[in-house]
Amino acid sequence: MKINIGIVGYGNLGKSAERAVLANKNLNLVRIFSRRVVVSSYNTAVEPYENYRNFVGKIDIMLLCGGSKSDLEVQTPEILEYFDCINTFDTHKKLKSEYDRLGKLAKETGHRLIMACGWDPGMFSVIRAYNKAISGTNPITFWGKGISMGHSDAIRRVNGVIDAVQFTVPSPDAVKLAKAGTLPDDVPLHFRECYVVADKKDQERIEKEIKEIPNYFKGQPTTVNFVSSEKLSKLKSKMFHKGEVISSFKTVHGSACKINFSVSMESNPNFTASIVIAYINAIVNLKYNGLSGAFTNLDIPPSYLFLGKEKENLISSLC
Amino acid sequence: MKINIGIVGYGNLGKSAERAVLANKNLNLVRIFSRRVVVSSYNTAVEPYENYRNFVGKIDIMLLCGGSKSDLEVQTPEILEYFDCINTFDTHKKLKSEYDRLGKLAKETGHRLIMACGWDPGMFSVIRAYNKAISGTNPITFWGKGISMGHSDAIRRVNGVIDAVQFTVPSPDAVKLAKAGTLPDDVPLHFRECYVVADKKDQERIEKEIKEIPNYFKGQPTTVNFVSSEKLSKLKSKMFHKGEVISSFKTVHGSACKINFSVSMESNPNFTASIVIAYINAIVNLKYNGLSGAFTNLDIPPSYLFLGKEKENLISSLC
Repeated sequence: MKINIGIVGYGNLGKSAERAVLANKNLNLVRIFSRRVVVSSYNTAVEPYENYRNFVGKIDIMLLCGGSKSDLEVQTPEILEYFDCINTFDTHKKLKSEYDRLGKLAKETGHRLIMACGWDPGMFSVIRAYNKAISGTNPITFWGKGISMGHSDAIRRVNGVIDAVQFTVPSPDAVKLAKAGTLPDDVPLHFRECYVVADKKDQERIEKEIKEIPNYFKGQPTTVNFVSSEKLSKLKSKMFHKGEVISSFKTVHGSACKINFSVSMESNPNFTASIVIAYINAIVNLKYNGLSGAFTNLDIPPSYLFLGKEKENLISSLC
Repeated sequence: MKINIGIVGYGNLGKSAERAVLANKNLNLVRIFSRRVVVSSYNTAVEPYENYRNFVGKIDIMLLCGGSKSDLEVQTPEILEYFDCINTFDTHKKLKSEYDRLGKLAKETGHRLIMACGWDPGMFSVIRAYNKAISGTNPITFWGKGISMGHSDAIRRVNGVIDAVQFTVPSPDAVKLAKAGTLPDDVPLHFRECYVVADKKDQERIEKEIKEIPNYFKGQPTTVNFVSSEKLSKLKSKMFHKGEVISSFKTVHGSACKINFSVSMESNPNFTASIVIAYINAIVNLKYNGLSGAFTNLDIPPSYLFLGKEKENLISSLC
């Protein structure tokens, strides 16, 4: 029997999720829900967002593909009341409060939410947890080269900025020091490459203001490039990304160990969608075991990513 | 309250586990159990193996540090009848049957066994599971350079071999092809460096016989070096090891992704002991949640490696 899937939100991630669901023979894509009337590129039926309630009993799991900035905090509780859900919420400072709030709601309504599901947070969180548990030390994470939405948004809030995008680039020196286990606290981990569209007259001030934005750019090696709208459109379409989690430590016996995990991808939304789709089986396993509530990837046993015979034979095939 | 630990077996892994338990302020090392009367290097009290039953109620978790070849299949069920246990059993073709047999016993006696716990099987199994679930393809694992016990044992069974050790070395070409996602099925993944002590008159025959051992050496690039007993002792004391799990694939959308996980360690037993110690918390969490049975690392949520406040705050500290 196929698992019935709904997708909420039809931006980059929603489109990637649609193709991934359609390609999976265990899944049946019932509907896409969108606040704007859209036509799906693959002929999936699209409903206005608010119609989701009509699909109780027809959809098993909703993939929430809206953005962390404005969609997910509103949509997740609305939909979770009626459906099991997976979202990719990644606003770090709100993760714990959302986990508590949505966990309570999920338990009350007897549903399951897997939240913060993706490569970071998500896969990288899992790797950091293993490394921390084994080494007793905090791993170091590098991102890029790739676009950071948060940093791009921060630039766009500067007065006079018409549009902007920011590429995060790991500092090769910092990566080297991290791998050697000798990274001092005060070495910047990343370079910030900013591309900005703005009027000539504002550019000098804007560059200065960007470099002073606390938490985002201040104290970090930042370059600001002013480009045309056409150039910016091209840059904003770059979906590649990379990341790395590095632990270099000594065991309590004093013997050196290195653990290194890296991912690189041509398309961030396609890779993220592949991870979201993999956790559909986890929802099925949670439900089968009578569990409800909010879960992150840290709460899910790796074996829950498999079902049936494949799950039973995991110990022979993957151990 | 400290967790009371017993260690069964006092070879390389037992010694590494002893030091790791002593260095951990949440653990109390009650006894080492050994079939040979030994003196601990760190003044831990040592009991004859068969006395383990006297420690029911005094030891919470037993770390079974015997070898997969002859100890663990016998000792694990004996001790599991009375205690929660962790072992590092790694005889691949027996994993599933041991999992089933010991899982049944653990449930009957209300205990928990975490088995096949280490870096491979163990950590690498977990990584292979994530990569498989996300990519739909089987990752490729490389080991070494480091000693393979199984291959060393296979050489020792050849008539006339006095002693031997085998270093597994990944083929640089195979690693390169695996990372590019273009590894053909018939490319050998590893070189086999054999060091053998034998009488001069037997050497030609022995070299030929080693290279013909099916599953271990036949069809794999193998070099056989005859060395003195002194040289062999030195080689056998090399504890360093390395390993790598590589996935290079395209998502269903056709976009390329690479996932790469590697570990390297100065001391295999010290690193393995660090992993075993990390899973002590998992036993506590399993027990707290009323679960009994046999578990591999695949069955354990990453969050189970933490306790108390650290576990509660995981989402803020590691996600």
